Amino acid sequence: MEYVFTRKINYYETDQMGVVHHSNYFRFFEEARIAYLENIGYGYDKLEQMGIISPVLSISCDYIKPLKFSDEIQIKLNFITSTSIKFEIEYEIYKDGELTSRGYSKHCYLDNNGSVIGIKKHYPDFYNSIKK
Amino acid sequence: MEYVFTRKINYYETDQMGVVHHSNYFRFFEEARIAYLENIGYGYDKLEQMGIISPVLSISCDYIKPLKFSDEIQIKLNFITSTSIKFEIEYEIYKDGELTSRGYSKHCYLDNNGSVIGIKKHYPDFYNSIKK
Amino acid sequence: MEYVFTRKINYYETDQMGVVHHSNYFRFFEEARIAYLENIGYGYDKLEQMGIISPVLSISCDYIKPLKFSDEIQIKLNFITSTSIKFEIEYEIYKDGELTSRGYSKHCYLDNNGSVIGIKKHYPDFYNSIKK
Amino acid sequence: MEYVFTRKINYYETDQMGVVHHSNYFRFFEEARIAYLENIGYGYDKLEQMGIISPVLSISCDYIKPLKFSDEIQIKLNFITSTSIKFEIEYEIYKDGELTSRGYSKHCYLDNNGSVIGIKKHYPDFYNSIKK
Repeated sequence: MEYVFTRKINYYETDQMGVVHHSNYFRFFEEARIAYLENIGYGYDKLEQMGIISPVLSISCDYIKPLKFSDEIQIKLNFITSTSIKFEIEYEIYKDGELTSRGYSKHCYLDNNGSVIGIKKHYPDFYNSIKK
Repeated sequence: MEYVFTRKINYYETDQMGVVHHSNYFRFFEEARIAYLENIGYGYDKLEQMGIISPVLSISCDYIKPLKFSDEIQIKLNFITSTSIKFEIEYEIYKDGELTSRGYSKHCYLDNNGSVIGIKKHYPDFYNSIKK
Repeated sequence: MEYVFTRKINYYETDQMGVVHHSNYFRFFEEARIAYLENIGYGYDKLEQMGIISPVLSISCDYIKPLKFSDEIQIKLNFITSTSIKFEIEYEIYKDGELTSRGYSKHCYLDNNGSVIGIKKHYPDFYNSIKK
Repeated sequence: MEYVFTRKINYYETDQMGVVHHSNYFRFFEEARIAYLENIGYGYDKLEQMGIISPVLSISCDYIKPLKFSDEIQIKLNFITSTSIKFEIEYEIYKDGELTSRGYSKHCYLDNNGSVIGIKKHYPDFYNSIKK
């Protein structure tokens, strides 16, 4: 499963080096991840109704080329692992066709009590949708 | 009632003009406001236990001189209005003794159901603590 | 001159009250302001080439109804003052046709040396474009 | 070399789950890193005068236990690699003596032209100060 999310760099996302502050990349990844889930029919509202949250267990980013204000970027999102209890996503940020950074995030599924749930058994449709 | 809160400008609070982004001043005001309330014995935990929240109704800032990374600033906080149902705070940000910006925020008191409450009647001690 | 800018609320823009943190509204205003200038042919790149910056002198916001994650909002931007050396913008944020907040920002025009410039004389086309 | 940086969680750093948004951890790491460098006599001003910048090449964080508003945290910073041209830092965030997250960042040294520089040769005192 591959998905491409497009957005533009905002002025307030830059720092005094004139480039996007490195912490903001994780916000871009989140935007892309949420847009992807919405795109496959599992937007935030739906998952909330189903009683599923998927917290970030770990996240990372390699910075290859800096991004600047008003740059238009494409974030390619790719589920590299997807099991009943967790998933891992790879993110690649492209600008003008060139790879500028690459990130990874790991998530698990929790119910409203904070207990790990297996979506294969409890939400097979969701499991199949997200399976790469 | 006047109170002075000191903090240092972080790198990630700058933008590509090399100065603090104007939106961050409202975060500094919030830090100073919360520190003040804690200082008079009404920290967030206490107010939460009492079931009071005080949302921002309006806020503003006049920018006089820009702030830069690693500047040490003093935020002078002054309750200019304080009634049973609302309060207004003035904030002055100083650097090296010089006024660099001035802001105002207005707040009301709400209970956990989102209804306006009068603290003079329900929380007279808090009312007297906050009265200028 | 009226202009409408549309965007969606991101997850990371919420706070623990479950609503958009009040400081983020000023970032939305900035996004709308920059989009407007781009729309009339005076994007950031162009203004930079012309050697004009327009810093925020003051800004304010009245909060009427809170915004939540994934809300789609319209920001109506209106130049209420526009002279040779400064301008003032009014922002109205609508959700589902309902006004949820209103803000104002004041700006002046500076050249690369930080000196005030009159755009009526030096950049008459820009002056006429921005004139309401 | 180990260094401990203490700070408190701000209200605006929380998200609607009632915990610190994961992107903010990278800002805490930066605060700790800059404080450490200042502590050993190489604050931002000094490095700027020397013409050295040390951009983030990659960064990561593992989230063990969530942080909440007003939590007081200790960030233990440890240089795990330090050569003439790059360094790697480990960050551990503790709350009440308990490890809540662990992160890593990699950096190189660049001069004002963006060229890699070897600090062992050009800035031996700095090299020796930062050597673990």
